[in-house]
Amino acid sequence: MQVSPEPTTAGAARENLARRFKHIRDATVALTEGLEPEDLVIQSMPDASPTKWHLAHTTWFFETFILTAHAPGYDVFDPTFGYLFNSYYEAVGARHPRAERGLLSRPTTRRIIDYRAHVDAAATMWLERASDNAFAAARDVFVLGLHHEQQHQELIVTDLKHALARHPEMPVYRTDVARPSAAAAPLTWSEHEGGVREIGHDGAGFAFDNEGPRHKAYVAPFRIANRLVTCGEYAAFIDDDGYRRPEFWHSEGWAAVQARGWTAPLYWRGRDIITLSGARARDAAEPVCHVSWYEASAFAKWAKARLPTEAEWEVAAGDVPVAGNLLDAGHWHPVPAASAAARQIYGDVWEWTASPYVPYPGFREPPGAIGEYNGKFMASQMVLRGGSCATPEGHIRPTYRNFFYPDARWQFSGIRLASDL
Amino acid sequence: MQVSPEPTTAGAARENLARRFKHIRDATVALTEGLEPEDLVIQSMPDASPTKWHLAHTTWFFETFILTAHAPGYDVFDPTFGYLFNSYYEAVGARHPRAERGLLSRPTTRRIIDYRAHVDAAATMWLERASDNAFAAARDVFVLGLHHEQQHQELIVTDLKHALARHPEMPVYRTDVARPSAAAAPLTWSEHEGGVREIGHDGAGFAFDNEGPRHKAYVAPFRIANRLVTCGEYAAFIDDDGYRRPEFWHSEGWAAVQARGWTAPLYWRGRDIITLSGARARDAAEPVCHVSWYEASAFAKWAKARLPTEAEWEVAAGDVPVAGNLLDAGHWHPVPAASAAARQIYGDVWEWTASPYVPYPGFREPPGAIGEYNGKFMASQMVLRGGSCATPEGHIRPTYRNFFYPDARWQFSGIRLASDL
Amino acid sequence: MQVSPEPTTAGAARENLARRFKHIRDATVALTEGLEPEDLVIQSMPDASPTKWHLAHTTWFFETFILTAHAPGYDVFDPTFGYLFNSYYEAVGARHPRAERGLLSRPTTRRIIDYRAHVDAAATMWLERASDNAFAAARDVFVLGLHHEQQHQELIVTDLKHALARHPEMPVYRTDVARPSAAAAPLTWSEHEGGVREIGHDGAGFAFDNEGPRHKAYVAPFRIANRLVTCGEYAAFIDDDGYRRPEFWHSEGWAAVQARGWTAPLYWRGRDIITLSGARARDAAEPVCHVSWYEASAFAKWAKARLPTEAEWEVAAGDVPVAGNLLDAGHWHPVPAASAAARQIYGDVWEWTASPYVPYPGFREPPGAIGEYNGKFMASQMVLRGGSCATPEGHIRPTYRNFFYPDARWQFSGIRLASDL
Amino acid sequence: MQVSPEPTTAGAARENLARRFKHIRDATVALTEGLEPEDLVIQSMPDASPTKWHLAHTTWFFETFILTAHAPGYDVFDPTFGYLFNSYYEAVGARHPRAERGLLSRPTTRRIIDYRAHVDAAATMWLERASDNAFAAARDVFVLGLHHEQQHQELIVTDLKHALARHPEMPVYRTDVARPSAAAAPLTWSEHEGGVREIGHDGAGFAFDNEGPRHKAYVAPFRIANRLVTCGEYAAFIDDDGYRRPEFWHSEGWAAVQARGWTAPLYWRGRDIITLSGARARDAAEPVCHVSWYEASAFAKWAKARLPTEAEWEVAAGDVPVAGNLLDAGHWHPVPAASAAARQIYGDVWEWTASPYVPYPGFREPPGAIGEYNGKFMASQMVLRGGSCATPEGHIRPTYRNFFYPDARWQFSGIRLASDL
Repeated sequence: MQVSPEPTTAGAARENLARRFKHIRDATVALTEGLEPEDLVIQSMPDASPTKWHLAHTTWFFETFILTAHAPGYDVFDPTFGYLFNSYYEAVGARHPRAERGLLSRPTTRRIIDYRAHVDAAATMWLERASDNAFAAARDVFVLGLHHEQQHQELIVTDLKHALARHPEMPVYRTDVARPSAAAAPLTWSEHEGGVREIGHDGAGFAFDNEGPRHKAYVAPFRIANRLVTCGEYAAFIDDDGYRRPEFWHSEGWAAVQARGWTAPLYWRGRDIITLSGARARDAAEPVCHVSWYEASAFAKWAKARLPTEAEWEVAAGDVPVAGNLLDAGHWHPVPAASAAARQIYGDVWEWTASPYVPYPGFREPPGAIGEYNGKFMASQMVLRGGSCATPEGHIRPTYRNFFYPDARWQFSGIRLASDL
Repeated sequence: MQVSPEPTTAGAARENLARRFKHIRDATVALTEGLEPEDLVIQSMPDASPTKWHLAHTTWFFETFILTAHAPGYDVFDPTFGYLFNSYYEAVGARHPRAERGLLSRPTTRRIIDYRAHVDAAATMWLERASDNAFAAARDVFVLGLHHEQQHQELIVTDLKHALARHPEMPVYRTDVARPSAAAAPLTWSEHEGGVREIGHDGAGFAFDNEGPRHKAYVAPFRIANRLVTCGEYAAFIDDDGYRRPEFWHSEGWAAVQARGWTAPLYWRGRDIITLSGARARDAAEPVCHVSWYEASAFAKWAKARLPTEAEWEVAAGDVPVAGNLLDAGHWHPVPAASAAARQIYGDVWEWTASPYVPYPGFREPPGAIGEYNGKFMASQMVLRGGSCATPEGHIRPTYRNFFYPDARWQFSGIRLASDL
Repeated sequence: MQVSPEPTTAGAARENLARRFKHIRDATVALTEGLEPEDLVIQSMPDASPTKWHLAHTTWFFETFILTAHAPGYDVFDPTFGYLFNSYYEAVGARHPRAERGLLSRPTTRRIIDYRAHVDAAATMWLERASDNAFAAARDVFVLGLHHEQQHQELIVTDLKHALARHPEMPVYRTDVARPSAAAAPLTWSEHEGGVREIGHDGAGFAFDNEGPRHKAYVAPFRIANRLVTCGEYAAFIDDDGYRRPEFWHSEGWAAVQARGWTAPLYWRGRDIITLSGARARDAAEPVCHVSWYEASAFAKWAKARLPTEAEWEVAAGDVPVAGNLLDAGHWHPVPAASAAARQIYGDVWEWTASPYVPYPGFREPPGAIGEYNGKFMASQMVLRGGSCATPEGHIRPTYRNFFYPDARWQFSGIRLASDL
Repeated sequence: MQVSPEPTTAGAARENLARRFKHIRDATVALTEGLEPEDLVIQSMPDASPTKWHLAHTTWFFETFILTAHAPGYDVFDPTFGYLFNSYYEAVGARHPRAERGLLSRPTTRRIIDYRAHVDAAATMWLERASDNAFAAARDVFVLGLHHEQQHQELIVTDLKHALARHPEMPVYRTDVARPSAAAAPLTWSEHEGGVREIGHDGAGFAFDNEGPRHKAYVAPFRIANRLVTCGEYAAFIDDDGYRRPEFWHSEGWAAVQARGWTAPLYWRGRDIITLSGARARDAAEPVCHVSWYEASAFAKWAKARLPTEAEWEVAAGDVPVAGNLLDAGHWHPVPAASAAARQIYGDVWEWTASPYVPYPGFREPPGAIGEYNGKFMASQMVLRGGSCATPEGHIRPTYRNFFYPDARWQFSGIRLASDL
């Protein structure tokens, strides 16, 4: 994580941080509105976590890495929570097995809300009163905690979607949803010359450690699609026996298709699609989502194209403003490109790239438990770029590297095409 | 199920049934006192079910087999519940997979309580107003529903115990527990001559279908212990390397010991034992419980004895009054035999027998869905007798045949020794 | 194992035993005629063993329990064989995991044949020269070794059948097969009164330990079919949606049908059947075989009958001569009942009974490793009676109790119907 | 696959090819010397294949892609072999499941040797007599068949090693092994400037399709070790609790360590190591081998270094002569670096790189079944470079990209360190 000093006075920096802290912490709890206590307990698969676990884990992060580490005299809210709500930090100690988070009825949501209040108050007080030295030492981790919390906001949304979709009645999560409709803009391409390019984060402003260092990469000439692949286009792939023709698939992807009986993206049901606002007819113009990397790759091969590398994606994103159908837009689902100009770079769906998730040249993990944040996952996963309709505003950047296993489908993951020039 | 007419007027029979119905239905809900909504959702293994599922399933039984079948004009509370809360009646239609009951956040407990109220009102009204013909046709099934509900009361207790014990903090379920202490009475034996005996239910009063018909069996001379095996005795078996010496075990039991790493009964933790009132020091005098049939058999072989057959058990039970440490005693755990006279025939622990669960000679399943109640499980399971500290009063009889797989340990299952004479 | 003294002089007993020893040992090797070394290596499932393992294991039995134990100065052929060829005798020491027998390329068949010759010579010499005391001490175990070898002869046949059937080309094992054809005799029934009967082995002549002691059992009145169920009758069950109607099945059997996709007996392929002489058209008149206990039970329920208990079977077998379509008949497959008089009690197929495999009253395991022979398997298995077309002559008796898990299908297992009277 | 025309007359090209064909085909069979037919049947895990399957599959390749496709009138040796010996070519039709290759006793090795003779004769005749057009059309695939066969030579060796090591007695494969001993040369480093480099195959001479096209890549400044990591160095990692400290491991690698109980490389047994010549004391100076990518990465992190990328490796290999401890050297195991000058670039062990196996920019699969050769495996695997002591001479190049899953250990896979400059 490279964080440059922000251009403010120390006091303003603290106030600014306190404001963001309150905003982000409140936004997390707001995601539980309309849900029942029972909804917050269940874990629908090992990859997903109960909502109340997310509520507690993000709180544990601030308690552990700020308050316990940097706030002398802070009283831990409940000493058993360290074991329960550590996600994967081996350096911090033993932890509850991930696949068994759904077996934890206690602490209840009510008690976790108390936990949040306790930590919020202490963290806010710390922001006010910490010595300059303490503040300077912990500020980057505090900011990291905010971005960490936003990551979990997205997971709350996708994990809830998965859990509710396992229920035979598919309960509705959000009813207050605006749903723009439009025809799909025609698919056009941007061409890019080859050459040595610089990619990765340059250290100005927050970024996760895995986004840097900024470095040179040789990028061969390529072209890239100006919008996302739509459900209509993906349906044509299916209609052309896409899931029955091994020639489009990686061997491993083909094995997944056979073993799991995939015949369409996750959440497709006949002509319908399950959304966070319930099942409804699929719109041919809306971006396809909830596909695995295997499916994205097979579709691209069928379309006589390929997925972009992450360097290509970042070059193509260039200085497009960071805006789009993000969580705050309130659509809770990808929406059709309003016009040919709307390139859908940010928001709507995470875009699978052709790039495995590996360290950039010169990458070094930060010391201590925080060093476990990203580096240890750099094996067997693929990079996704651009954020989705479940990504909170302020949480996405041109250099942001998301990563999931190639068989993952429960994120809002979709497809942008590219090809050699 | 053989049910004889009870010796009352028709009106008194209805009133009596209404009283029992209210008593039993209320007792089920009372088991959730002190628990949080979150506790009622979780499913700790495929064999166990969430408490709120038990609350709903027992209600579905009355709705389906009484109200829908016999109450003209009855409005089903929620048509989706049939799919969700059918346990295993193939004849009634498709059902939610058992292992996924813990993924159902909805209906919430609150709504299930409404469901119970709806069905209770309708069933009570039906008891009052049904025609004599309708009442006669459905009465036996109504009574079956009461016994079915009591079975699930016991499962609520054992399933909760299992779920809470999976939590690293092992939350306490019951705090208001009287715990008698006593030395273990000396182990003595009753001797029984051989000969043709009659066992099984004779049709007077309620019994499950699998308890009859009453039939002749040749029983060879045997002796049987006058009390249950204690924790102290079982600890001696462990100390004598019981779990490390294959000569005591069935081949299949030995494989289970290896594969699952068993070294003691379920819920033993060092010198402590997990009870429904939390972890506490084990009492050498209390009956051992939460052992599998494999462990019961291995212990018996170590002790140069064997388990009794169910015929032997029933002969030995003879006309001992049906009383003991049942659920209503409020101990929530087996207790030491107060004296040599206390034979612990009923209550404390279900006693594993040497008898596989097979139909009695002449057994016939009742027609229709109710016929699925017991017969289809007559494969690969072992019979247990006598009820436990989680069995509701009025729910146990000399002829009652409980059955579980030989590796099951989450019931209050224990050991009584027998041997050839 | 109860073995009574045979009515001969000591010398004649030794000679007789030597003759039987040679005959049985040679018969084992004769089963490999026409096979390639490669055929003898493979293990098609954990329940089955490679042929060469059977060749070695039966030899190890004599080496371990006769020569090492009773022949002073005997040189073990290869000290590594103890680990490799112990099947399940915990008391004899560690052993190679059963499921990995197919990974053992060495010793080769050639070396195992040498091993057999070495042990055969030593055992023959021991029979001649052992002191009377040694002979008396070991004779029963020697006889047990012969019966043990015959058991493995049957397993060689059924395991080979399974392995060859896994091959897409289904290689033929036996070509020299006489195949009688006949219409199925009409199904008739014998009726038997109820009462106390004696069943089990009385100790005269050889029997396995599990066949005794002879004991009293109360048998209710019953009737039993005079021939086996045929393929034609079983096909009618299938045509009547037998594999799609849960009402005929035990819950556990129904789960097996779903999980394994069973739609017919093992080795049925459309209208054909795989036999040891290759695939050929199925004969409606031939006894159905290679069904599990679940299928046998479901068929019986569909046919409004049930399986006989083992006591009923033994009563019905009465003093029928022990003869029929056994291995030595050379059919290598069940054959139609030649006439109504041919009751098919012995040979053709092992007949599943309704009886779980439990110890008889008064059963005691012999001391030492030999005690592991039968008793430790008395859990979760079902008894079969009567021998099959793969059972060697001289190896079947009225009291013989074979046992397999209820889902086993690779033995020649079939169905005889019974019902209450 | 890019193959440039070789600088010979057409006739010489055919003769040359015939010579190489005979040499390589004979070399395959020579690998079975000293083995028993039983050794050639077994399959010790799904990743490995029986030797006789390799013998047949390489033959099937020539039969299918040369003789059937390009030799009019060729008679297929056995039409069932297509199903049995297709490895993974979906375009060629259905095939026997990989994990069940060990269940195929037939065809026997003897018959497979006949198959080889049949195809060898026909292929040799085809080389002589094919029309110039046919020869031109098929020559590249013929050459591919030779390299394909050499790949399987290496697999025969590693699969046999795995199978023999599963045997409790660990039979010896090669006894005629020269084993040089030397102290480990000191570890020194070569430094390389950064800049745009060209990597990949340029099309001159044979290469697999995945080695091209040659393309530009930006390589940052780096240094790379001048020899392989030794057993002594790896033992120091173990002694420093390398397998017990999660900080060195990828999350996925740590999970593998826990789940599989890894505490050392495959084939380490205490102070010994299993080799193809049997178990013997480990030599601290010999290169470590049979480590997974996870272990290689963890070791590198412990050593405060990292694995090289494949571009770095290729840059560093530069124009080092392609020579070293390859299969033909007859060591059958990695050997210590004889001197500081011996850089061990080729032979000894395949060197894990930091690079996931992805297509090079501009990569295109050849059309038809041959297109399935490499591209479809470009998911979730890691690149290894340099060949091993089991790689046949003539089969390794600077641009050769081998690939395995990060948990694979049964290849001769080892470690070369690199780091940023």
